[in-house]
Amino acid sequence: MSDIHYPMGFKPLPSKEKPAPLPRAKNKGAANRGMDFEAEINESNAYYREKDLCVMYKRPTPIKIVKVDYSKGATIKEAYFETQSTTDYNGVYKGHYVDFEAKECRSKTSFPLHNVPPQQIDHLKAVIRHGGIAFFLIRFALLDATYFLPASYLIAFLESGKRQSIPVADIKAHGKKVPEGFRPRYDYLPLIDEVFLK
Amino acid sequence: MSDIHYPMGFKPLPSKEKPAPLPRAKNKGAANRGMDFEAEINESNAYYREKDLCVMYKRPTPIKIVKVDYSKGATIKEAYFETQSTTDYNGVYKGHYVDFEAKECRSKTSFPLHNVPPQQIDHLKAVIRHGGIAFFLIRFALLDATYFLPASYLIAFLESGKRQSIPVADIKAHGKKVPEGFRPRYDYLPLIDEVFLK
Repeated sequence: MSDIHYPMGFKPLPSKEKPAPLPRAKNKGAANRGMDFEAEINESNAYYREKDLCVMYKRPTPIKIVKVDYSKGATIKEAYFETQSTTDYNGVYKGHYVDFEAKECRSKTSFPLHNVPPQQIDHLKAVIRHGGIAFFLIRFALLDATYFLPASYLIAFLESGKRQSIPVADIKAHGKKVPEGFRPRYDYLPLIDEVFLK
Repeated sequence: MSDIHYPMGFKPLPSKEKPAPLPRAKNKGAANRGMDFEAEINESNAYYREKDLCVMYKRPTPIKIVKVDYSKGATIKEAYFETQSTTDYNGVYKGHYVDFEAKECRSKTSFPLHNVPPQQIDHLKAVIRHGGIAFFLIRFALLDATYFLPASYLIAFLESGKRQSIPVADIKAHGKKVPEGFRPRYDYLPLIDEVFLK
């Protein structure tokens, strides 16, 4: 991890840290079953905002607009999806800038790094350089488990060039399992305290 | 300003503070003339990112997608503009969460508060409660002048209910004139230091 800066007192996780056992999901939220990961995180963020615990939002998907019909209101008639040059989520928690990306994968054994485009890596490195808190929420759908992984760890792993995917065992060792419940569906906020603010 | 919290050591501007004289624009950037305010701020942010001074982005405009044609790639065939529930810009500077809105007005004497929808006020109040840095960049097109105004001042003014618009004199007294140049077009970053981080 030598080429990553940790300004403002941030530090990488000790490399052999064993995550403390976390409470198991109390309520898997049958009503949420089938809802996609992004929508569930949006719901979790809405819950946090409602309880005034933080201000976290998904950035809208950038769209390139080609044609707009103004004949009745403004109706977009031709447009294309653009690639997000940043991550999907950001906001403020306890005065800190927070930036994260949520990824879901179908593997049972590892998280394929090709899921993270280079511009997201560059963005997250910039966030870390400027003293922000940066992490991934990685959902292993087939394991029914979601992990909180500091972006610094994923970046160092990627730049080591050793493997094209991070084994689940490494994610467990260097991240934290995200407690799941009804509301919020993914309770990642206490993990920010645990990992970055303790 | 009694109902506004300033956690994490933030404080409102002294109410009678006289802004220090700022350097006049060295180069009005003829190439930029006619470019709209939003595009010029985007350019300023791109310059800051390029120089690695902060990570600041415009949030994409939220769009409600109704119909997508997948026959060749994904072409959006019907969609509508949605109202941004937050401000337009946010990011990280020196470890701090920064959130701001840019507004341009045609008045020469005051900034009409109806330009700021209630959801933006609520959002900015939440940002301040959680220790973020919140401000407005207000451009008076006919005066060819742009001001940096802490959101706390605008909110307090609005909630005092005295007037429907903030006189330019008040904005000058409680804000700072944004230095204009070629790159960055609007050099607002040093004003964050001056107003919030000194």
